[in-house]
Amino acid sequence: MTRSAVKHAARAKAAPTRKASPARKIVYFFGGGKADGTAKMKELLGGKGANLAEMAGLGLPVPPGFTITTGVCTYYYEHGRKLPATLSSDVEKNLRRIETILGAEFGDAQNPLLVSVRSGARSSMPGMMETILNVGLNDVTREGLVAKTGNARFVYDAQRRLIQMYSDVVMEKAAGIEPAPGKGIRQQLERELERLKESRGVRQDTELSADDLRALIDVYKSKVLEVLGRPFPEDPREQLWGGIGAVFQSWNGRRAVEYRRIEKIPDEWGTAVSVQAMVFGNMGETSATGVGFTRNPATGENIFYGEWLPTAQGEDVVAGIRTPLPINEAGKTEHTRHLPSLETAMPDAYRRLARIQRRLERHSRDMLDSEFTSQEGRLWMLQCRVGKRNGVAAVKMAVDMANEKLIAKREAVLRVSPSALVQVLLPMLDPKAELETVAIAKGLPAGPGGAYGRIALTADEAAAIAAQKSGEDAKVVLVREETSPEDIHGMHAAQAILTAKGGMTSHAALVARGWGKCCIVGCDALEIDLEAGTVQVGSRTLRRGDWISLNGTEGKLYEGRIALVAPNLEHNREYRSLMRWADRFRRLGIRANADTVEDAARARAFGAEGIGLFRTEHMFYGEGSDAPLGKLRRMIVAESESERRAALAELFVDVKSDILATLEVMQGLPVTIRLLDPPLHEFVPKQREKLEELAAQVGIDIDELERRAAALHETNPMMGHRGVRLGISYPEVTEMQVRAIFEAAAELLRQGKKAEPEIMIPVVSAPAELDHQYAIIERVYGEVLRRTGLKRIPHLVGTMIEVPRAALLAGKIAERARFFSFGTNDLTQLTFGFSRDDTGSFLPRYLAQKLLPEDPFASLDESGVGELVKVAIERGRRTRRDLKIGICGEHGGDPRSVAFCHDAGLDYVSCSPFRVPIARLAAAHAALQR
Amino acid sequence: MTRSAVKHAARAKAAPTRKASPARKIVYFFGGGKADGTAKMKELLGGKGANLAEMAGLGLPVPPGFTITTGVCTYYYEHGRKLPATLSSDVEKNLRRIETILGAEFGDAQNPLLVSVRSGARSSMPGMMETILNVGLNDVTREGLVAKTGNARFVYDAQRRLIQMYSDVVMEKAAGIEPAPGKGIRQQLERELERLKESRGVRQDTELSADDLRALIDVYKSKVLEVLGRPFPEDPREQLWGGIGAVFQSWNGRRAVEYRRIEKIPDEWGTAVSVQAMVFGNMGETSATGVGFTRNPATGENIFYGEWLPTAQGEDVVAGIRTPLPINEAGKTEHTRHLPSLETAMPDAYRRLARIQRRLERHSRDMLDSEFTSQEGRLWMLQCRVGKRNGVAAVKMAVDMANEKLIAKREAVLRVSPSALVQVLLPMLDPKAELETVAIAKGLPAGPGGAYGRIALTADEAAAIAAQKSGEDAKVVLVREETSPEDIHGMHAAQAILTAKGGMTSHAALVARGWGKCCIVGCDALEIDLEAGTVQVGSRTLRRGDWISLNGTEGKLYEGRIALVAPNLEHNREYRSLMRWADRFRRLGIRANADTVEDAARARAFGAEGIGLFRTEHMFYGEGSDAPLGKLRRMIVAESESERRAALAELFVDVKSDILATLEVMQGLPVTIRLLDPPLHEFVPKQREKLEELAAQVGIDIDELERRAAALHETNPMMGHRGVRLGISYPEVTEMQVRAIFEAAAELLRQGKKAEPEIMIPVVSAPAELDHQYAIIERVYGEVLRRTGLKRIPHLVGTMIEVPRAALLAGKIAERARFFSFGTNDLTQLTFGFSRDDTGSFLPRYLAQKLLPEDPFASLDESGVGELVKVAIERGRRTRRDLKIGICGEHGGDPRSVAFCHDAGLDYVSCSPFRVPIARLAAAHAALQR
Repeated sequence: MTRSAVKHAARAKAAPTRKASPARKIVYFFGGGKADGTAKMKELLGGKGANLAEMAGLGLPVPPGFTITTGVCTYYYEHGRKLPATLSSDVEKNLRRIETILGAEFGDAQNPLLVSVRSGARSSMPGMMETILNVGLNDVTREGLVAKTGNARFVYDAQRRLIQMYSDVVMEKAAGIEPAPGKGIRQQLERELERLKESRGVRQDTELSADDLRALIDVYKSKVLEVLGRPFPEDPREQLWGGIGAVFQSWNGRRAVEYRRIEKIPDEWGTAVSVQAMVFGNMGETSATGVGFTRNPATGENIFYGEWLPTAQGEDVVAGIRTPLPINEAGKTEHTRHLPSLETAMPDAYRRLARIQRRLERHSRDMLDSEFTSQEGRLWMLQCRVGKRNGVAAVKMAVDMANEKLIAKREAVLRVSPSALVQVLLPMLDPKAELETVAIAKGLPAGPGGAYGRIALTADEAAAIAAQKSGEDAKVVLVREETSPEDIHGMHAAQAILTAKGGMTSHAALVARGWGKCCIVGCDALEIDLEAGTVQVGSRTLRRGDWISLNGTEGKLYEGRIALVAPNLEHNREYRSLMRWADRFRRLGIRANADTVEDAARARAFGAEGIGLFRTEHMFYGEGSDAPLGKLRRMIVAESESERRAALAELFVDVKSDILATLEVMQGLPVTIRLLDPPLHEFVPKQREKLEELAAQVGIDIDELERRAAALHETNPMMGHRGVRLGISYPEVTEMQVRAIFEAAAELLRQGKKAEPEIMIPVVSAPAELDHQYAIIERVYGEVLRRTGLKRIPHLVGTMIEVPRAALLAGKIAERARFFSFGTNDLTQLTFGFSRDDTGSFLPRYLAQKLLPEDPFASLDESGVGELVKVAIERGRRTRRDLKIGICGEHGGDPRSVAFCHDAGLDYVSCSPFRVPIARLAAAHAALQR
Repeated sequence: MTRSAVKHAARAKAAPTRKASPARKIVYFFGGGKADGTAKMKELLGGKGANLAEMAGLGLPVPPGFTITTGVCTYYYEHGRKLPATLSSDVEKNLRRIETILGAEFGDAQNPLLVSVRSGARSSMPGMMETILNVGLNDVTREGLVAKTGNARFVYDAQRRLIQMYSDVVMEKAAGIEPAPGKGIRQQLERELERLKESRGVRQDTELSADDLRALIDVYKSKVLEVLGRPFPEDPREQLWGGIGAVFQSWNGRRAVEYRRIEKIPDEWGTAVSVQAMVFGNMGETSATGVGFTRNPATGENIFYGEWLPTAQGEDVVAGIRTPLPINEAGKTEHTRHLPSLETAMPDAYRRLARIQRRLERHSRDMLDSEFTSQEGRLWMLQCRVGKRNGVAAVKMAVDMANEKLIAKREAVLRVSPSALVQVLLPMLDPKAELETVAIAKGLPAGPGGAYGRIALTADEAAAIAAQKSGEDAKVVLVREETSPEDIHGMHAAQAILTAKGGMTSHAALVARGWGKCCIVGCDALEIDLEAGTVQVGSRTLRRGDWISLNGTEGKLYEGRIALVAPNLEHNREYRSLMRWADRFRRLGIRANADTVEDAARARAFGAEGIGLFRTEHMFYGEGSDAPLGKLRRMIVAESESERRAALAELFVDVKSDILATLEVMQGLPVTIRLLDPPLHEFVPKQREKLEELAAQVGIDIDELERRAAALHETNPMMGHRGVRLGISYPEVTEMQVRAIFEAAAELLRQGKKAEPEIMIPVVSAPAELDHQYAIIERVYGEVLRRTGLKRIPHLVGTMIEVPRAALLAGKIAERARFFSFGTNDLTQLTFGFSRDDTGSFLPRYLAQKLLPEDPFASLDESGVGELVKVAIERGRRTRRDLKIGICGEHGGDPRSVAFCHDAGLDYVSCSPFRVPIARLAAAHAALQR
């Protein structure tokens, strides 16, 4: 039991529900121009219930109904799935209010009222919980409705749908029956429907006659009795209570639980249940249904956008069985030009609807999406909520609304979530082209952005194609059932990853997210046949080598190649406004981690105010005959200081020119250069032939070289001979790097340019390590000043805080260090005792079982690592008030971690160049939300 | 500059030395029955100066003299090696007081006063700093002395010694001259002496005539001028000041600095300088010199013990050139029975001396050692100090003195340092046999205890002999220039390790100390010739395979086999008294880490009050056809839960019987059983043939097995899939162990015996991990209760705190855990980011360069790891007041760490059985010293 649930339960026990007290009211009415609730009561009424109340309160045409609060859901789970005793009379009373407004009666044979029973959580969980429509229909009431509407076909169809939905949701799922695959009551009833259509020789449901449907109802009922062993309930009240219970039950259904885990929705929130009078968009030709967006959710344009269908129910629009029509002339595309719009087909209804849209947006000050139904020409609003939008649209809407004075600039900044901003920055499938293509399958959106490539069915295949071909031909998408660590090389080589199985925390999803790679997982429509080299998607057969395109932001898969468009930030006026405003609000500085001149230039373009991490070792990662790596290797296997110094002298030239170029690009913005960090054996070749090559270069025997290389082996390299420990073992290595830094800066200064290097010492665990390195740095600084005749070279010397002991001893360390930079990757590894390279064997399970709230390498662990960070800041600043403090771990680009850094009082965060805008926005959010 | 030195200097600057103020007195007089100082003033006067003052104050016959304070030493280093201005007049004034008492005058031609100049630090640094004797002798004063003593040979010999000593210490060393090897002035003068002896055809110095020596003085003087380019100073005052300066200088000599590092003596203490009138034990037949101990320092017996030499100077007794004689009849041994004692040779002097010994011991309430000289029948006390003693003697003396009411019991307990107690517990060379054998060489005592074995000159040799032979023949001592990690197997196989090079922090020393193995390092008398297979020690040639014996406690090497004696603690009455008293004073509980029934029994015998760490995995470390290891391996490579459960069912039997036996031995004392901790790949064989065997057992293909084994590989296994992470991945493994524990305990309880298991969950980093494991434990507990019909099985469930995050989240963790046990080995690894397996590449340098005050794996790092320990205790107890807290890392047996644990408020420490008595004593010290 969660803490809050316990508290809740305790409170519930202490004070049993009484009707009189509004604080303990458990049923809220809406309709007839009035409502007990408002949009602000989402916690109690769920999103749907609160919005219905709000619309009703505004006097909009909402079918009357009532909402049972989320508190009842909590009560239900705290009391062995029993409902509170008072609920029954509350429901009856509210049912009577609906009956009064509509002049119909629930269960009445002549003029029956039908209702829907819907779930509604505090935050939207689309499709995750249950809904039952047409509750109240039975063999008696249907005849009253036939008489009243004169539309028997419509009524029998509604009853058939009720039986199909209810037997599945209430009688099977909520009862905990787990049928064999394909044997579920829903499938069995669907087979009966198919059988009927076959026998009648028709393809569409709509082609069946009223008599057909009435006969089908009887078939359905006997099937229900046969399969579930109970008759379908004819009593409207039994239907109603079954529906209410099933909705509460569905809060803990497998899909809902999984969804909450991914979306981080607390289990204890619970769902509300809304019971609402049914209205029908399928009652005849003057009936219609549709959805509306107050602005275009794909582009953000300020134009009423939507889709509709005549003679249809809401689910038909969403389900994609019939192609919906454009709602107005302005929303038409090439493809939809020839279709009728609501604007022209039902101009009165459209005008009323458009007026409601404007009213709603003005009232809520945000883009809303809504569902409406016109029943025999009368317009009803069925629901409304803040509309989903993609990142590009989110930015445009926020900035437009601020410019329209609908919202303040600070609110505009807060409207765009940093993760939405990612979509503005990623290359994506050309939205126009995408709009005109039909997705062939949908999966979970595990890695955002767009990508295309040829299908590769194994990792080796993907890696081979990427390595052997070039240009477009080298582009592959790795398509697998699931991925495993053995597939890493192929995943890396691929443009995107697509898997048939796996959820948002599967191997593929975790890896892709880590790399920022486009990825769709759990795309269960795929049937991969490795031997045949095919991927079956429904009736389509794709083959190895065929082109496919992925929209990883939405999880959509397309056949063929859809062009990618790079975001044009220069010309994205709204993006630039938003970032300008964000910069105005934020307090945190934003730097980038950049190892090359190109990275540095990119970082500046993205708005970085400096480089927070320049890793000198980066230049050693490229092979090549005269690459710096060769020189480094000679340095590493040197056994005497003199051998080592000779190799270092050669390296010096490369290191200096690399640093000089980066300092130059940054034009006087601070550049934090970290001294050599990784364990040396990382750079020693593993293959025999490379070793032989190196032996020849160094001029020693291969056996001797192997001995020297073996001596570098470590059991736990992450905690071995690395960072400042190298600088202490080999002071000449520190000396070479420091000399390169000062000489590079000096050269720029003497050219009249600016340079502001910050020398950063890694993996410090003891204050005396700094003393040791500072002595070298000060000596070399003096030497360079003398050699160049400069009076000073602006610079700082500081340290990384990435070892727990450094955080604890920060007060002492700050006596030397002028700045701290938190290396939160390593600090997380050591604080948890998690080797990041090895967490694959247990961390996924930890996340799945909620032993940890989230991956601490993705989002900073505030309770553990965060405490060390805070301790270090407090102690460091107590020693040195002007201590500059930043973070250069990967958390620097994670919005939640940025918020933590803001609260903790850091001076800046540093992240990959690409994530700089995200960090800027996250920093503004942090500043505005505190 | 150190902090305290800075403070010191600041104080010195703020208030320049004035004579009048006693607080700033810089020269302290003693002699003539009076003294300015006392024994309590060691900080100011050094040990030697303070003790001389004390003796003089007691009215004992002390040659008069004065002590220049340690403050002057500090001043000297703070002022560019200049002495304070007022020192000169203070020294002159005190010199005159000596002259007055003795009726002689410094530099006087007729009746010259000679003085010694000696160093004296707060704590003894034997042989590390300089001493100059006979200061004041020159070509003029010597003739006065010849006339006065009528002993020209003695006088010229004294002058020769002065020149030899002074030119070396003052003119060469203190001047910073570094001669080529063998070219030092001392060696050059010694060669002149040898040459003279050769030309005279004599072997002993004493055979040279007065004329020979006078001639040698001239040769010496011209050699000094030739080699050092300066004449030897004839001016007595120049000699005196040169000597004073040289002593201060020697405080920062290489040897002294190294010694302080090892002995952890702060650099800022400084040395005092004592200038004292010379007395001569070599003036003729009524002169003698010697050393006395108020009790026997080897056995502790309460009998005046000492050695003496007629017609000799103090250095002759110590230097081992002449064999010293027993001081009294009671101290005679088999070997010395025939030699004359002081008691019989000079009965008056002996009686006076014996009286002084009694007086001194009664006064100081401790065993003292002293140096005395009888100059022409007159007895002088030259120095005294608390006498060094071995561990056995320390225990006996402390207990005897308490029984004699000389000291209180609490003082007796404090008198024995825990490290001295080690000697009582270690097997050692039979002291009687050792006493009758002459050591052939001496080195640094790197690993205490005694050992013997045949010489092996390579690690392979040592390992091979140990593996192939058995019994006595398998015993080898590995003798190496130095050791390196490649020698580990040989070091492990050897009884002891002996190296020619290396200091107390060399590889050999570190490894041996870690293993508790007898070891001598830096034994520079050894010349190892690997090809010839010989070890040259002076004129002796030892060969590969020869027997040698080592006393690692004192660093002494012997030829041949000296029997080892195991300490007989049962019959060591004093040891048992001491431990009983210690137990009365301590507050900390003491448990042992024990993995086997034998260990558990040993632990109880050593006084353990429970087992603090029983590692279930220990039983898997033995190979064998049906050993548990085989079953474990089958469990590990199982790929399905059912395969795993089958292997676990087999393992269960072994685990249960192992636990049952241990619980039984402990008779109801608590036994903390840690659930499986190490990464599984540790147990998978590496060799191909073992793998094939396993594949056959498991019934799978070797390739498949290799794949499964490879999947277990980790980059940083220390931070990988281990501890509770295994229990979460494989709940059935936790279940098996927990069931074994409860069933074992239940079986004992049903037999009417006691059992108190404590289940300990390792490597916890998140509170939810405990929830997960507790669910299993509670379920199994219930099942075992039902199965056995017991109402309850007394037990606790708790966790190790060995991951920094666990320490930080201790408040939350204590909601579940009933006890904490600090795993300080891993906590140290993670807090520092030091992989213990890999520190060899940098930690020795860190210790040598003082970047860390000491090895954090040997003694708990109080400022880093210690803070986490304190935080965890405070937060844990805030949640659960009766939280039981212990420590089971290796620090539990380190006296300084035990003191920390006492202060931190732990309930108990747990250490290896062997160290239990040490921990008991250390805990008593901690309680008494706070």
